[in-house]
Amino acid sequence: MSKLFREIDHCVTAPQGFRAGTTACGIKSDSSIKDLAILASDVPCIAAGTFTTSSTRAAPVLVCQERLKSGKAQSVIVNSGNANCATGDLGLLNAYRMTEYVAKRLNLENEMVLCSSTGIIGRQLPIEKIAAGVNAIELSTDQGDAFSEAILTTDTRPKRMALEFQIDGRTVRLGGATKGAGMIYPNMATMLCYLTTDAAIEYQWLLTELRTAVADSFNMLSMDGDMSTNDTCILFANGLAGNRPINAQHPEAGTFREALHHITQYLAREMARDGEGATKLMTVHVRGARDKADAVKAARAVTLSPLWQCALAGGDPNWGRIVAALGASGCELHQDTYDIFIGDVQVTKQGMAAQYDQDQARAAMAGGEVTITVDLHLNDGQATAWGCDLTHGYIDENTMYTR
Amino acid sequence: MSKLFREIDHCVTAPQGFRAGTTACGIKSDSSIKDLAILASDVPCIAAGTFTTSSTRAAPVLVCQERLKSGKAQSVIVNSGNANCATGDLGLLNAYRMTEYVAKRLNLENEMVLCSSTGIIGRQLPIEKIAAGVNAIELSTDQGDAFSEAILTTDTRPKRMALEFQIDGRTVRLGGATKGAGMIYPNMATMLCYLTTDAAIEYQWLLTELRTAVADSFNMLSMDGDMSTNDTCILFANGLAGNRPINAQHPEAGTFREALHHITQYLAREMARDGEGATKLMTVHVRGARDKADAVKAARAVTLSPLWQCALAGGDPNWGRIVAALGASGCELHQDTYDIFIGDVQVTKQGMAAQYDQDQARAAMAGGEVTITVDLHLNDGQATAWGCDLTHGYIDENTMYTR
Repeated sequence: MSKLFREIDHCVTAPQGFRAGTTACGIKSDSSIKDLAILASDVPCIAAGTFTTSSTRAAPVLVCQERLKSGKAQSVIVNSGNANCATGDLGLLNAYRMTEYVAKRLNLENEMVLCSSTGIIGRQLPIEKIAAGVNAIELSTDQGDAFSEAILTTDTRPKRMALEFQIDGRTVRLGGATKGAGMIYPNMATMLCYLTTDAAIEYQWLLTELRTAVADSFNMLSMDGDMSTNDTCILFANGLAGNRPINAQHPEAGTFREALHHITQYLAREMARDGEGATKLMTVHVRGARDKADAVKAARAVTLSPLWQCALAGGDPNWGRIVAALGASGCELHQDTYDIFIGDVQVTKQGMAAQYDQDQARAAMAGGEVTITVDLHLNDGQATAWGCDLTHGYIDENTMYTR
Repeated sequence: MSKLFREIDHCVTAPQGFRAGTTACGIKSDSSIKDLAILASDVPCIAAGTFTTSSTRAAPVLVCQERLKSGKAQSVIVNSGNANCATGDLGLLNAYRMTEYVAKRLNLENEMVLCSSTGIIGRQLPIEKIAAGVNAIELSTDQGDAFSEAILTTDTRPKRMALEFQIDGRTVRLGGATKGAGMIYPNMATMLCYLTTDAAIEYQWLLTELRTAVADSFNMLSMDGDMSTNDTCILFANGLAGNRPINAQHPEAGTFREALHHITQYLAREMARDGEGATKLMTVHVRGARDKADAVKAARAVTLSPLWQCALAGGDPNWGRIVAALGASGCELHQDTYDIFIGDVQVTKQGMAAQYDQDQARAAMAGGEVTITVDLHLNDGQATAWGCDLTHGYIDENTMYTR
């Protein structure tokens, strides 16, 4: 990790002035499982978000997109177990209601509260349970980890991080929590991500930097190619650290940017590692591409190939499937120039089998993390994507979800 | 089936003047399995093909594309067990050599012989085995079925058909055989398809009709989203039926077109049904789309969703996953107008859960063939796509392929 920042506890409640709380309100059939969470700042925040580009996006996404036009927000309520998607006018009304309950309880304006839902599509929210749940939730500054757990669905573990660093001689903190293990594919993944910071930041810079960070992290993540209806990533900045507001001219803007990329890429990798049924994290580096857009296409195509995902599961260095994925990706590629490496083992040289030791190639596929490097030898475009293997576990997880 | 034509035996050797032969030349490790096949016409043919659009396309695809510029061909040699892809200059030389062996044995010009390869990527062809195999093959008019078997890889059964019909009062026959069970995704699927006819056909009409038929059949087929490096579909027409050459003005052009669509769509469906690990054939009809291109996007997106493919495997009518797939497809969609049916059961009405009986919906998912109908209620665009479910069998098939 960069020496500029250090890791601290409590993820989204690590920054000053953020509180969270959770409850099991009964949306999920197992009433011992937390399924409702609130995250709130003590003071109004500059806030920005990125969302799914699906044309069947869910009601809470529509609410967030509308409210974030102001560039301000103070709280978000999240339920798991029900996506509030394909729920029509009643679904939209219920999304607004969720925010009203929070606004009333925390004495905020309705417009300052956002909402997210994740879970099954096509069922109406049990809105009375949510109303009761909101009243049962007590917020505190040490509930960041509980928040990161209440937003999970098929995830096997929470994904969270917080960093501390200095800007203008002030201590600044940035925290994040995500969920997402299936229906994961860019723009955005089936994922929810909440980021909080006590840094003071100008809105336009915040929005630009969030988009860039998401493009290089969550949007480079794929598990199964299914884009969700509910993808959401929101960053709240409440300014309590007391630094001069960060903008492009701020001399320490790079420090915040680096911390933001560190957290978002960490969370993206952890989501890939926790993909439904996943046993291996795959990292794909592409370099030498015509440009960055081509490198992105190529890197994503490899992570997205079910055949290569299966080979990965089996520890089989069947690099022909990488060749097929690259060929289908739409990136510019010359058949006599590209090289492929599995770990440190070069398996393909100038578009043909390299001389390599099969046992070494298998060894490079054997661990819990496998790195693929593709050099197209055309120009200087590069990108990194993350994914996971495809196993029986994914099938098992997804054949009986609604039952 | 249309009364215009009837089904007959011998698939690609059903039309007059076509012969085929096969052998086990030892490309596959199990030497009892046929892995080399030749199909030839007694006289030169008008011929056209459609091929993978991959930028890592295999050597035999390059050879076919070059030779079919003439619009003529008389024979094709096919090996399974090795894709002759990512094999560089030597691979290209070996592809040409395959055709030379056939040309010599059948006393044809080299340029009239095409070649295909399917199997593992990145290994050089054992060209001496192929040379010996070509000399061992005896062609005959009743070997169409054997041909359809020798081209298989992970397929569990051959896919083949032949039809007989009348044009200009002459008996005309059209036969076809395909292989393909994994790495199946349009443009084209990982598939090989050979079509033969004794009809006399003008080249330009043949090419146009073949492209249209492939667009509505094989290019609407997906199993895993992996586009292959070797996809090939070739139609040979030798004219021995003695009809007046068919072109757009021919009064019975529609009969041939109908037969061609019947065979290609039948073969596409059979490939979906025999997808790696597949237990269910999925047919997705989209209607009411803004235009045909949008309908194609929507229909393909549903067949391509791993989450929906898993739900299909489990017989779980989790239509929210269809909603997500439609939303991510890029087709125009209004959230308050679209309807979804599973079999005859309407599960979604105007973008929300319809009133339906859960047991009936489960029953509609229970058989070996499941039909999904999506009506977008926007305009008159429509399309049909085929796919299959995603099961443990697919994983098992693909984790250890190279070992």
